[in-house]
Amino acid sequence: MQTNYNAKIQKAVEQLVAMQLDGSLYHCNQDGEPNPSIEELREIISLCRTILFPGFFGDNSSVNTTTLPYHVGVNMERLFVKLSGQLYAGMCFDSDNNLSSAERKCAAKDMASCFIEKLPEIRGILTTDVDAIFCGDPAAKNSGEIILSYPGIKAIVNYRIAHCLLTLGANILIPRIITEMAHSETGIDIHPGATIGERFAIDHGTGIVVGETCIIGNNVKLYQGVTLGAKSFPTDENNNPIKGIPRHPILEDNVVVYAGATILGRVTIGKDSVIGGNTWVTHDVAAGSVVTI
Amino acid sequence: MQTNYNAKIQKAVEQLVAMQLDGSLYHCNQDGEPNPSIEELREIISLCRTILFPGFFGDNSSVNTTTLPYHVGVNMERLFVKLSGQLYAGMCFDSDNNLSSAERKCAAKDMASCFIEKLPEIRGILTTDVDAIFCGDPAAKNSGEIILSYPGIKAIVNYRIAHCLLTLGANILIPRIITEMAHSETGIDIHPGATIGERFAIDHGTGIVVGETCIIGNNVKLYQGVTLGAKSFPTDENNNPIKGIPRHPILEDNVVVYAGATILGRVTIGKDSVIGGNTWVTHDVAAGSVVTI
Amino acid sequence: MQTNYNAKIQKAVEQLVAMQLDGSLYHCNQDGEPNPSIEELREIISLCRTILFPGFFGDNSSVNTTTLPYHVGVNMERLFVKLSGQLYAGMCFDSDNNLSSAERKCAAKDMASCFIEKLPEIRGILTTDVDAIFCGDPAAKNSGEIILSYPGIKAIVNYRIAHCLLTLGANILIPRIITEMAHSETGIDIHPGATIGERFAIDHGTGIVVGETCIIGNNVKLYQGVTLGAKSFPTDENNNPIKGIPRHPILEDNVVVYAGATILGRVTIGKDSVIGGNTWVTHDVAAGSVVTI
Amino acid sequence: MQTNYNAKIQKAVEQLVAMQLDGSLYHCNQDGEPNPSIEELREIISLCRTILFPGFFGDNSSVNTTTLPYHVGVNMERLFVKLSGQLYAGMCFDSDNNLSSAERKCAAKDMASCFIEKLPEIRGILTTDVDAIFCGDPAAKNSGEIILSYPGIKAIVNYRIAHCLLTLGANILIPRIITEMAHSETGIDIHPGATIGERFAIDHGTGIVVGETCIIGNNVKLYQGVTLGAKSFPTDENNNPIKGIPRHPILEDNVVVYAGATILGRVTIGKDSVIGGNTWVTHDVAAGSVVTI
Amino acid sequence: MQTNYNAKIQKAVEQLVAMQLDGSLYHCNQDGEPNPSIEELREIISLCRTILFPGFFGDNSSVNTTTLPYHVGVNMERLFVKLSGQLYAGMCFDSDNNLSSAERKCAAKDMASCFIEKLPEIRGILTTDVDAIFCGDPAAKNSGEIILSYPGIKAIVNYRIAHCLLTLGANILIPRIITEMAHSETGIDIHPGATIGERFAIDHGTGIVVGETCIIGNNVKLYQGVTLGAKSFPTDENNNPIKGIPRHPILEDNVVVYAGATILGRVTIGKDSVIGGNTWVTHDVAAGSVVTI
Amino acid sequence: MQTNYNAKIQKAVEQLVAMQLDGSLYHCNQDGEPNPSIEELREIISLCRTILFPGFFGDNSSVNTTTLPYHVGVNMERLFVKLSGQLYAGMCFDSDNNLSSAERKCAAKDMASCFIEKLPEIRGILTTDVDAIFCGDPAAKNSGEIILSYPGIKAIVNYRIAHCLLTLGANILIPRIITEMAHSETGIDIHPGATIGERFAIDHGTGIVVGETCIIGNNVKLYQGVTLGAKSFPTDENNNPIKGIPRHPILEDNVVVYAGATILGRVTIGKDSVIGGNTWVTHDVAAGSVVTI
Repeated sequence: MQTNYNAKIQKAVEQLVAMQLDGSLYHCNQDGEPNPSIEELREIISLCRTILFPGFFGDNSSVNTTTLPYHVGVNMERLFVKLSGQLYAGMCFDSDNNLSSAERKCAAKDMASCFIEKLPEIRGILTTDVDAIFCGDPAAKNSGEIILSYPGIKAIVNYRIAHCLLTLGANILIPRIITEMAHSETGIDIHPGATIGERFAIDHGTGIVVGETCIIGNNVKLYQGVTLGAKSFPTDENNNPIKGIPRHPILEDNVVVYAGATILGRVTIGKDSVIGGNTWVTHDVAAGSVVTI
Repeated sequence: MQTNYNAKIQKAVEQLVAMQLDGSLYHCNQDGEPNPSIEELREIISLCRTILFPGFFGDNSSVNTTTLPYHVGVNMERLFVKLSGQLYAGMCFDSDNNLSSAERKCAAKDMASCFIEKLPEIRGILTTDVDAIFCGDPAAKNSGEIILSYPGIKAIVNYRIAHCLLTLGANILIPRIITEMAHSETGIDIHPGATIGERFAIDHGTGIVVGETCIIGNNVKLYQGVTLGAKSFPTDENNNPIKGIPRHPILEDNVVVYAGATILGRVTIGKDSVIGGNTWVTHDVAAGSVVTI
Repeated sequence: MQTNYNAKIQKAVEQLVAMQLDGSLYHCNQDGEPNPSIEELREIISLCRTILFPGFFGDNSSVNTTTLPYHVGVNMERLFVKLSGQLYAGMCFDSDNNLSSAERKCAAKDMASCFIEKLPEIRGILTTDVDAIFCGDPAAKNSGEIILSYPGIKAIVNYRIAHCLLTLGANILIPRIITEMAHSETGIDIHPGATIGERFAIDHGTGIVVGETCIIGNNVKLYQGVTLGAKSFPTDENNNPIKGIPRHPILEDNVVVYAGATILGRVTIGKDSVIGGNTWVTHDVAAGSVVTI
Repeated sequence: MQTNYNAKIQKAVEQLVAMQLDGSLYHCNQDGEPNPSIEELREIISLCRTILFPGFFGDNSSVNTTTLPYHVGVNMERLFVKLSGQLYAGMCFDSDNNLSSAERKCAAKDMASCFIEKLPEIRGILTTDVDAIFCGDPAAKNSGEIILSYPGIKAIVNYRIAHCLLTLGANILIPRIITEMAHSETGIDIHPGATIGERFAIDHGTGIVVGETCIIGNNVKLYQGVTLGAKSFPTDENNNPIKGIPRHPILEDNVVVYAGATILGRVTIGKDSVIGGNTWVTHDVAAGSVVTI
Repeated sequence: MQTNYNAKIQKAVEQLVAMQLDGSLYHCNQDGEPNPSIEELREIISLCRTILFPGFFGDNSSVNTTTLPYHVGVNMERLFVKLSGQLYAGMCFDSDNNLSSAERKCAAKDMASCFIEKLPEIRGILTTDVDAIFCGDPAAKNSGEIILSYPGIKAIVNYRIAHCLLTLGANILIPRIITEMAHSETGIDIHPGATIGERFAIDHGTGIVVGETCIIGNNVKLYQGVTLGAKSFPTDENNNPIKGIPRHPILEDNVVVYAGATILGRVTIGKDSVIGGNTWVTHDVAAGSVVTI
Repeated sequence: MQTNYNAKIQKAVEQLVAMQLDGSLYHCNQDGEPNPSIEELREIISLCRTILFPGFFGDNSSVNTTTLPYHVGVNMERLFVKLSGQLYAGMCFDSDNNLSSAERKCAAKDMASCFIEKLPEIRGILTTDVDAIFCGDPAAKNSGEIILSYPGIKAIVNYRIAHCLLTLGANILIPRIITEMAHSETGIDIHPGATIGERFAIDHGTGIVVGETCIIGNNVKLYQGVTLGAKSFPTDENNNPIKGIPRHPILEDNVVVYAGATILGRVTIGKDSVIGGNTWVTHDVAAGSVVTI
């Protein structure tokens, strides 16, 4: 009986190994090179949150004025080590990359240290995001509540980290996993390639989609179920989509988009406009407009 | 080279410490007071599920008639200890609170023991919710399937716990984190401040939003993507939203709201009404109405 | 004081034990039979992903041509053991089942070994799904990005596993928990009972609902917020819904359904049709149609 | 280069597999039967300590008069499940055993439940051991210090558990692993086959050896480095040692053996005798004797 | 059958609860007061080792000149929190202690901070111990080998920490558990009450016993199996040993004691003496003596 | 008050950092090079045990004829990765080593693969050790009992692994930590530099010391408390011990040494000799002698 099970197992192993050695969807690590690790990236995000919002996240030690530099320092060094590792792992997935293993490791460390240089700037802009959410939600009692429990701010933190890494030249895989983590946790799907200004507010957020080539100004607010998507995309002679063409909306400063609205294509929503709930917008909207269903 | 990385790390640490000591978005724990812990709250919810639905959750020991009281007893005591701790942590975030540390601890224990007193009542009402879901879904084979795999019941369990804690006077932070956990897990966002009757059924659920001041009667059913939101909110002289004003819908008994419907503002949906999918409702609806797109 | 807390705890324990012994919503394990375990099922899915996409998931060891069979072999055996265990646990929830404990265990092992036999076939069809997503998304840079970060492929993997188990006769509880895990992680809710062809593509995905009796052809693509649901369901003389009646849509080959569309009831969307965003469809659609708002 | 490593790994794998399939020192589990697990046995001992000395070991919950029965009950049930499992695993190593898998499982459960029946008796005798240690050590401040930090009591607890299991018919493997755990932790090596009376005291203890067929009366005290060993053992025609022959000392009531003393062979140390430090004793000693170097 | 097991479990629970409520060997925590935790104390020792020997222990981050203060700072704060907790737990076992819970907590924090003040001094003396071991062992290749792998230095570190805590007034339970941990790990049993000078060297160490009232000068070396014990102890009118009387040897500066030697009673071994292996010494030895078997 | 604690912490941090930067006993990792990790080495030993004695150790999967190669293969690859890492970490502690980081990594991999080549040979000799122990102990019921519970075999496994690594050129730190792990677990202290033949048996074992330059023939048996040590060692002009001089005993084939015997210096115990318990031997012993106290 057991023999029978073993035979089935053995046969399935052989078939799968054969399929994989045929090359389809099999990633062959070279000489012990690491894979991107979702656990490591999760811890990287957790370290960033702890560094950016000290006293809110992290272990239960009593962070205070004396001990704050110790904690930020240790977390920063750990971030440097882990982020270097994941950026290196990302490079190993990049088949066009001709660097040696040592050169890649060095490039990954450079990139991680540049990211760390940018952290104060990221913190500055996140402060404006938290304030924008607080000012726009009568249910919010204080900024601690927003930092600890609002899905919008979680999605924005991951987006700002991922966007910064992409800008610094990271393989798309790492930023994409980071924003997808937030998507999974919050239902808010922001592509790391999008460009988003200060005071960005999201309420509830489930179902929001912000596409790769979106450009969003300052002081914009999105409600749940909003799609900023592409209408269609050109394909090449092999019928494959052409990558990298601007195809998502531009939202200028102070735009508000209510729940369930869908804005598609490279259209511009002029500043101070209000796009009503459940609307369907596929053309430019002049500044100061109010669009309703 | 390494020195160079160290210099960048050191500079970023100094900048961030300086920003934080300036006071913005920095929570300074007093003398070792704890932070709310998402892990602890996750375990509190897990203990509640194990207590409320014995034999479905929890470790793989054989719960039976003899051993049930042992298990419920140990879980209850653990719940008391952990919940007291988190309620105390929540109070420490409340800047208006003038109690001493010992007084807060005592208040937290009182509150936790009152919550425990309410657990049989919560179990009673959850029994009606499970039954309502079962009766409304042809795909459901038995109540075990609902308890173990339906997102709707997970969201309702967290809401009923969070609402009870809020009613008992807990700092909003703790109930908000609890409902946000369910939001993250299920895509269903119910504010702990909402009031919801018996036999509350949710199907699929992703994208549902139930606002802070909603009042929902008995035997109400919501499908995925339903928003029970606010239309707008008054602001004070500083342009800050005024907190606590009733601004979300009232749904009377036996109302059904189909997928994607949006109901906004302090409107009343009269009993036995049916609100169709993708509708947009911003005014009162008489009892027994059927609203379609 | 403490005595007071103890009294409350003791009273709540007694009340809850009494309620549960009354039989409502209490699952009484017989003689140490196991419960379905969400942790075990999570690990089963993780093992399947590691087996199906080697070199992408799993620990950081260097999988290569020499070591691949070792890894697939060990993971396959572990999968066999864990899956047998969960299928057995599922059977223990099946009150109609008259088999002895030993017969159930044997049946569970048979079923698990049949599932393992099907894994190469599942891998084959998943290869077509990954390709379909890649061809349909200009933002996707390579198939590694899709496998590691696209929510759509996660939901499809869980669905294909769950559907296969259901077809092999598993208690619905196990497949349902598996698809619900993907629902929780991705916001995409596909019932394991649905039938779905090759080259199935999902973009973004949050809010998608695919009902129990759906039939989906080859090369179909769904965007976020699409509902393939039931319009209504007949009830029996006791007003309980009648289980198992076909009540969800049929989508023929090459259909595309854009974001937010709702298709309800046993309707057929003819092949090559395009269903536009936010549309509401409750009747048959001829092949080659374009339906817009 | 990597290929070279892979070749070495592959060759070593093949050689080792070949050696093992030749049968030498290879334990072939039948059809998924479990191995004895040192982790499980460690937890079994930990559960026993928690049950036998409540309020000293175990998690940090506040055990009190109200909650004590809950804790003892849950721990007892867990002990029953885990101990049944390990006793069953032990039986699977017993090649002479002709029982079916189901019969072994049943026998293991019977044995575990008999062990549980004996726990109050074991607790009673351990109380006398703690008292004997306290009375004999001027450095001991209270019984809590002995229970929490004295290696002697740890070794005695494991011995009394292991001896009880052996008496109940457990495969020697399980009791031996249990006493070896204590040996590793404390340097005190008591064979589970030895017979030891009440009020057994050990001071410091490192290096103590108590052989398989020792018989020790009540109120005996051993210091560190004491050996109660065998002088020689008869061999059979194949020059293999004959198993089970009485070959270790008998110590009557109230004997004290000081540090480093060695007593070898089936000799009797008469009651109330004192064996001095570093002595070498290989013959009977009359009651009331004092033996010095 | 199962019922039968349950009956046995239930009966044993009842018997054990009854025995424990009778008060014997039952520690009743008051109102949630914590127990000493061996895991916490293990981590406290681990933190001390990391602080005292930076770059040798602790996680794999790259400690360097820039990051050293961050690491020491975070570890020190964690040490303060954990040690305060355990010292407080120790006080709760002290039945003579009349302080309130808040007073005890405060006293524990004071004591922990005084211990931290002493850490640089402890590090200074440990530096002399490492050097003494290195100078006395031809097999030692460098001080890193001693710090990372010599049991002697582990036992000395735990002793010096435990002795310091005892001097600061900690309940004996905490220091005793700390030295017993080292005893378990190394076979070296040094009572925290002993007084030991600088440059203390231990080689191999298994079986060493250093009693509560020993006084050891500078530059003393002990080999494995050495006992510095008590010869006998006076008892009071109830035949209980009288606690706290000096009853262990005094070893003056530069004494060497070879393997297996036993020195008993309040005797003085004069400076520069050598005590040979396996000797038995129960009287004073003049300075500069050589004692052999 | 808290400020006061902070001041003490801050001062101690500064003092310790200053002491460490002075260079004494501070290991400064260069550019992220790893430390030897006791956890990793523990897992390396555990992997070796699982590979060498399949079916006895390792997880509870059912190892059988079909699945054995998968398990050995995966464990071997994991062993290669982890052992390479630790050998590299050991090299980083070697201050005389002038290799670049990449050269060290490569050397570590070479060494690890050579170790793997030797594993079948190590398994062969361990088979003789297990048999020797079985033949010499009437209490042993079967070889499984020896493999799973005898401290002697644990110490011998670690010694044989450590000795092989030392022979292959590993930095002494790694082999020393490996034998010290066994010393801690069993009280048996065998230096990795010793040379030991086949059929090496240890009974009980606590307190055994086998020095760095010992040479032990085939079929030798040691009882607990046996020391094979150095008598004295020459020092250089600075009074430092001269490293590496042969100074420990030679035991020829078939020698038995009973409990507590001490053999010191570069003496030869001729073949077939028996050294009695508690003896003290510092001169050569002719073949076939019997030495008693």
